[in-house]
Amino acid sequence: MSFERGIYRDLGKNYGEWFDYVLENAEIYDYGRYPVKGMGIWLPYGFKLRRNIVELIRGLLDETGHEEILLPLLIPELIFRKESEHVKGFEGEVYWVTHGGLEPLDIRLALRPTSETSLTYLESFWIKSYRQLPKKYYQVVSIFRYETKATRPMIRLREVTTFKEAHTVHESFEDAERQVKEAISIYAKFFDILGIPYVVSKRPEWDKFAGAVYTIAFDTLLPDGKALQIGTVHHLGQTFTKVFEVRIQKRDESLDYAWQTSYGISDRVVASVISIHGDSRGLVLPFIVAPIKVVIIPIPGKTPKENEEVGEFINEVKKILEVNGFITKVDDREDVRPGEKFYYWEMRGVPIRIEIGVREVKERSVTVFRRDMLKREVVKFDELINYLNKLAKDIDENLRKRAWEKFREHVRRVKDLSEAREVLEKFRGIVEVPWCGKRSCGLVMADEVNARMLGTPIEGVPKPMLKGLKCPVCGEDAKTIARLAKTY
Amino acid sequence: MSFERGIYRDLGKNYGEWFDYVLENAEIYDYGRYPVKGMGIWLPYGFKLRRNIVELIRGLLDETGHEEILLPLLIPELIFRKESEHVKGFEGEVYWVTHGGLEPLDIRLALRPTSETSLTYLESFWIKSYRQLPKKYYQVVSIFRYETKATRPMIRLREVTTFKEAHTVHESFEDAERQVKEAISIYAKFFDILGIPYVVSKRPEWDKFAGAVYTIAFDTLLPDGKALQIGTVHHLGQTFTKVFEVRIQKRDESLDYAWQTSYGISDRVVASVISIHGDSRGLVLPFIVAPIKVVIIPIPGKTPKENEEVGEFINEVKKILEVNGFITKVDDREDVRPGEKFYYWEMRGVPIRIEIGVREVKERSVTVFRRDMLKREVVKFDELINYLNKLAKDIDENLRKRAWEKFREHVRRVKDLSEAREVLEKFRGIVEVPWCGKRSCGLVMADEVNARMLGTPIEGVPKPMLKGLKCPVCGEDAKTIARLAKTY
Repeated sequence: MSFERGIYRDLGKNYGEWFDYVLENAEIYDYGRYPVKGMGIWLPYGFKLRRNIVELIRGLLDETGHEEILLPLLIPELIFRKESEHVKGFEGEVYWVTHGGLEPLDIRLALRPTSETSLTYLESFWIKSYRQLPKKYYQVVSIFRYETKATRPMIRLREVTTFKEAHTVHESFEDAERQVKEAISIYAKFFDILGIPYVVSKRPEWDKFAGAVYTIAFDTLLPDGKALQIGTVHHLGQTFTKVFEVRIQKRDESLDYAWQTSYGISDRVVASVISIHGDSRGLVLPFIVAPIKVVIIPIPGKTPKENEEVGEFINEVKKILEVNGFITKVDDREDVRPGEKFYYWEMRGVPIRIEIGVREVKERSVTVFRRDMLKREVVKFDELINYLNKLAKDIDENLRKRAWEKFREHVRRVKDLSEAREVLEKFRGIVEVPWCGKRSCGLVMADEVNARMLGTPIEGVPKPMLKGLKCPVCGEDAKTIARLAKTY
Repeated sequence: MSFERGIYRDLGKNYGEWFDYVLENAEIYDYGRYPVKGMGIWLPYGFKLRRNIVELIRGLLDETGHEEILLPLLIPELIFRKESEHVKGFEGEVYWVTHGGLEPLDIRLALRPTSETSLTYLESFWIKSYRQLPKKYYQVVSIFRYETKATRPMIRLREVTTFKEAHTVHESFEDAERQVKEAISIYAKFFDILGIPYVVSKRPEWDKFAGAVYTIAFDTLLPDGKALQIGTVHHLGQTFTKVFEVRIQKRDESLDYAWQTSYGISDRVVASVISIHGDSRGLVLPFIVAPIKVVIIPIPGKTPKENEEVGEFINEVKKILEVNGFITKVDDREDVRPGEKFYYWEMRGVPIRIEIGVREVKERSVTVFRRDMLKREVVKFDELINYLNKLAKDIDENLRKRAWEKFREHVRRVKDLSEAREVLEKFRGIVEVPWCGKRSCGLVMADEVNARMLGTPIEGVPKPMLKGLKCPVCGEDAKTIARLAKTY
């Protein structure tokens, strides 16, 4: 593949190609070479980006009392099959280990598609009393799903390598519901930090997690206008605690099954950061998760002496940057022109570039280029750290603002299904349609506009806003709003 | 199980039980409940310890130019089977995925037992020229081995959850050999920081890694005197690059297959830290990897006012500790007596305990207890931070020194096989026997003393030290020293 710089002016149109091109050329993720469909490799630069994003969610979970654990990958068939709804939801896409060495195993082992079953089995030993509750566990692991749909790097994989799954246990339905709210607020904070815009919807009954009482989901939009589910939160009720007998002594000394929630995010968060902020030159990374915060490019002078002075000044700048916590890279390759270096690091989304040449040495200043706005400014050496501290925040705020603006333009209230269909065909995005709330009408709607129902606003829709609105299928008064979108 | 405190005075004798007891009671690792043999769960406290240890080796690898990546878990049978020596070594213990959903897969997929094959396959696309070399990759992943021997938590598992495997590529045999040396020095530093003593041996020909030119191994001793392999470094020559066609352009423009090394450590490092430093009261963690560095225990006074003053002083102490980077936990449970709290945190190996009661408040001092020596000292508040900074270093040095002293006592030079046999029966440990170097004599030796040959000193044995020594099997002049031990 060879693409000219700037070819992706219109990301909306070429998004798919752009995404593959950037993953390869910014050395994020190797996909398509490995001879198993739906499995790829995190390359060093991509791994660092992924790690920074994972550390961010770890921090948010740790500070809210979540504890990290690590469960076995393999789940015995008997345990996996214990909860019937759950099995129905997953059995079509589970990988099975059947042989160890040269012999068949006595029992088949599933590669975990998610860990509700194995963890609840263990909780039946661990948790006996309300005194131990709430318990909030999480782990960051690979999960496996034998996807039959078309696979896409980071977006629909057979090995999802960055599955952060949280699992919590509570004394009552209400406690679990409060946990659902906490999970939503943690994810909202997480996506806000990353500048990923979203709607939070209650998934319709027919599209909830296998075994859940209800499912709340975060959806964002990719540059092609298709919605991507980037996080889910499930109220699990007592579905799993009943079959695995997680019985606890309650405050009033009675015995009852415990209540659970679970919530997860995946590699799709990384895909969203890349896709939503990127531009025609490649990646545009938020400062907070960028593996390299500042790259310094020397602009060669005319004499060896000039170059020496440039080099010395660069060392001085690098030192003060590092003392102040800016992870800095000096690109001092001798056989590469500055222009090529600009291109190279722009592709990799480094948020801040500093150019230093003879003029900068003379003026004891540096030229600062911000990747998000593609703008240059000359900054005095003495003011540099203050300037960069402010710039770092500016960049992330600007990315967030820009992404939300674009997102909001693509979430539209429509009156009827023909308008919905037209908007979805022309602009994609998310349409909001008045809905009576009946399953049958919901299914007709989704079918008529050839889209998926993301669900309804979790905070409900204020009555006055629904006044006079009718369900476009049955004509009855609308009770809520249904969100519909073309999805991944 | 119920054990009285102090039952493990003699860890040598009861080590196996002690280890299981501590893993459970210090809440490190849940083993035996999960219904798949050889697979366990990292519990929150254990996970933190594991994480600190992993971060330590990550730091050492990153600073020596290693790059972290993440490869797929599943290796297609064709790739796995490509190198015949390697297959022979591993095929008896590979788990196979044969089904996806309800259908059989076209090709069987191996759960990686190690990643030489899949990575070298990818390197054939990635690496074309000496200019890209050396390349040093690593990943921290789960590996799977269908062990037929008795499994032990962290020590012999079917899912090894903490496998740090490094893989490097070089231009020449000599470059790869230099990398072997770098790997040895990185591991030595790592084990030194953790206070784990070791011998470094070149494994005999018949016990090297499947596919390697040679294998260097680190072995330590557990409290029962049995040797445990805790790290290996392999010169892989061109074994894998030839079958996967990793051909590079060399400096002189010729084409040749690249050269490789690989090296790994596992959960066994955590097992060693726990086993080697622990005592009859439970864990004794090195300060540098302890999840909690300081625990503060309030000693209740006689009046509410006294307790209030104690509480205030504790807050003051906690604050200054945290500002100075000591991860601190205050155990203010009201229904638990101080003595029980001491026991609780001693079991968990927290390196430093601070006791604060009425006397301490009056004197503006604290009582500091160090877990490694079980010693108390009263320290003025104003001197506390200096004192603790020094103590932190002291603790780790003391653990290291103590462990090495014990270790050295158990590595003994012996003259002949009957002495070797006697020492191994009575004291276990490692015996060093003069050896002619012939395979046949080595095999006889190991068989005669009913032990495993760990190999020979990698730095060689100085000629004068071998003077007059004979191989106890064939009677010829000794050319080296063979290390023999009962092993895990």
